[in-house]
Amino acid sequence: MTERENDEMVVTPWEVRGTVDYDKLIEQFGVQRMTPDIPEKIASHAGFMHMQLRRGVYISHRDTDWWIGEHEKGNNVGLYTGRGPSGHVHLGHLLPWFFCKYLQDAFDAELYFQMTDDEKFLHYDELSLEEAIGYTYDNALDVIACGLDAERTHIFSDTEHIQHLYKIGLRVAKRVTYSTAKAVFGFNDSDNIGMIWYPALQAMTCFLQSDREGSNIPCLIPAAIDQDPYWRMTRDIAEKLGYYKPAQIHAKFLPGLGRGGKMSASQPETAIFTKDDPDLAASKVIGAFTGGQPTVQEQRERGGDPGICNVYAYYYFLFEEDDGALKRMEEDCRSGALICGDCKARLAGKVRAFLIDFQEKREKAKDRLDDFLLK
Amino acid sequence: MTERENDEMVVTPWEVRGTVDYDKLIEQFGVQRMTPDIPEKIASHAGFMHMQLRRGVYISHRDTDWWIGEHEKGNNVGLYTGRGPSGHVHLGHLLPWFFCKYLQDAFDAELYFQMTDDEKFLHYDELSLEEAIGYTYDNALDVIACGLDAERTHIFSDTEHIQHLYKIGLRVAKRVTYSTAKAVFGFNDSDNIGMIWYPALQAMTCFLQSDREGSNIPCLIPAAIDQDPYWRMTRDIAEKLGYYKPAQIHAKFLPGLGRGGKMSASQPETAIFTKDDPDLAASKVIGAFTGGQPTVQEQRERGGDPGICNVYAYYYFLFEEDDGALKRMEEDCRSGALICGDCKARLAGKVRAFLIDFQEKREKAKDRLDDFLLK
Repeated sequence: MTERENDEMVVTPWEVRGTVDYDKLIEQFGVQRMTPDIPEKIASHAGFMHMQLRRGVYISHRDTDWWIGEHEKGNNVGLYTGRGPSGHVHLGHLLPWFFCKYLQDAFDAELYFQMTDDEKFLHYDELSLEEAIGYTYDNALDVIACGLDAERTHIFSDTEHIQHLYKIGLRVAKRVTYSTAKAVFGFNDSDNIGMIWYPALQAMTCFLQSDREGSNIPCLIPAAIDQDPYWRMTRDIAEKLGYYKPAQIHAKFLPGLGRGGKMSASQPETAIFTKDDPDLAASKVIGAFTGGQPTVQEQRERGGDPGICNVYAYYYFLFEEDDGALKRMEEDCRSGALICGDCKARLAGKVRAFLIDFQEKREKAKDRLDDFLLK
Repeated sequence: MTERENDEMVVTPWEVRGTVDYDKLIEQFGVQRMTPDIPEKIASHAGFMHMQLRRGVYISHRDTDWWIGEHEKGNNVGLYTGRGPSGHVHLGHLLPWFFCKYLQDAFDAELYFQMTDDEKFLHYDELSLEEAIGYTYDNALDVIACGLDAERTHIFSDTEHIQHLYKIGLRVAKRVTYSTAKAVFGFNDSDNIGMIWYPALQAMTCFLQSDREGSNIPCLIPAAIDQDPYWRMTRDIAEKLGYYKPAQIHAKFLPGLGRGGKMSASQPETAIFTKDDPDLAASKVIGAFTGGQPTVQEQRERGGDPGICNVYAYYYFLFEEDDGALKRMEEDCRSGALICGDCKARLAGKVRAFLIDFQEKREKAKDRLDDFLLK
């Protein structure tokens, strides 16, 4: 059996491993494949097409077209995304948050940002509640540093803001049987009763803005596709509770710097954290897995393969805004004109500069945190 | 098959029906039978033995002797009881609350009083959350009217005070598997995920005072025996969380005015509610099932049976403080000297007077509600 065959894909809200096959996920999860009209419509409202849309980061969705249509009718629309605060934030986490900022501006939308510290505490044996809450406030600085609008962004912790959440959570929970939760999330008898309750709390955020504003407001969730089971469950009960079904737009995972897989906080050497010392981050890039040949000479002769290269992926997803430059880089790699050392050194410089800038914004976010927290 | 044989005993936190066999319950639930030393010790601290103790209302317990011992060592001890606010309060509910007032005074104890409006909402299909919360505040007036001390009593609603409760609830929930909850409460796959979570919230109150005060405070729960499954579960995890196991003292159910069974809010004609018009309540007493004979003449000849008489039970549990008078009443009933009409008329007068007084206290409680709510 080859390494590849053994590398079974597992994508659940609590675990992503193996080589992710998005076509298979789209089919398994029963979501809609992205079609060109959606990025085009979004771009028409934003004034430009976000790099993530041009690059195909968003591979599938549910009812995003409907959500845009509601905005076009002049109705308020809202956004919801979140973060499981079990560690520090890495660049992979930032992708949907940058995208939320773009959507917030384009659609003049309130964003409800959920920090699921209860879920993380309940899931990880060794994580204390104090630690999870600590990460909530620490990670919130990263969210703010992405440039979101304080007036229209509401960051909340499940544990610290529960008084705003519990009642809607109960309304959701009353509609979800254990049987359904088991089918959707694969719960079994040895799971704790907090984990079994928790989906109600993740689902309720879809209705939080509607509940607070007293009118039915379409909600779009930009998030990685591993969170889809929650929305499948939520969509089944939304109308019974008098709300619209939440819409979703699903991102790919940003690859890690190790071979295959996504960037993962559980493999710190393969992830660039926003709090990393910029020089350390640069050195992680220098040590990254690439699609290049073992020697410079072989690279010159046979060229590299950007399709399996994590360094290329970084340029692609985050660090090369210019489509023409990206295309030239790809061609130069394949032809052997570009060698990995140079390519990595340039990325390392970009990552370094990015972190210096981001960390400055993150530092400033400390004074603005309170403006962003749910009231 | 006689009516009696068909009248199978069912005692769970959500349902009590059939003829309650306390001996069987004590055995089934694995609790300790009450022994005379416990009422005596309590009385020695209170300065007198409460009528409910003299009359054997408290039939079993867990570790009540230990809890008293902790107080005797000079340690702080606490009390916890509660109410499922799904309707109006009847006299049966008041029994443990009066007893809590007695214990609060005797042991200088803080009382945490939980209104489980989340549970009631989750359990009853037709009950809205607004209704359950409405009952919380309405029922709280009854609790206060029982004479508790505002300084040492903390009434809270699961939904309205969740910010004080959720974190401890999560710590409990992380320790309880679905498997355990299923075994203890008989959950099945069609139960909603809120009900499955809820035991964590009822359990956490055992630790609430300790958590708030930052020291381990022994907790005693005076409550009807149907709530025991919660404490069985809680005792299993208490020490893992760093707390003492909660102690319990279990009350019998006050019989309803219909034949057999407890007084039940779901059978309003058999229950006297604290908000009943005193005249209506008196007329319910007049219509009560008794242990008397069909006619006055037969009663005079053969006497009645106080052992099956609900009117006698009312005197016994609540309305005849004087043990000698109660004994004479019993003897006069058995001999035929006392006939039901007279006995009921006298009770009706006592119930009427009780309600007039209680309703006045209840009215005054409206101005004091805020002093009693958990801060």
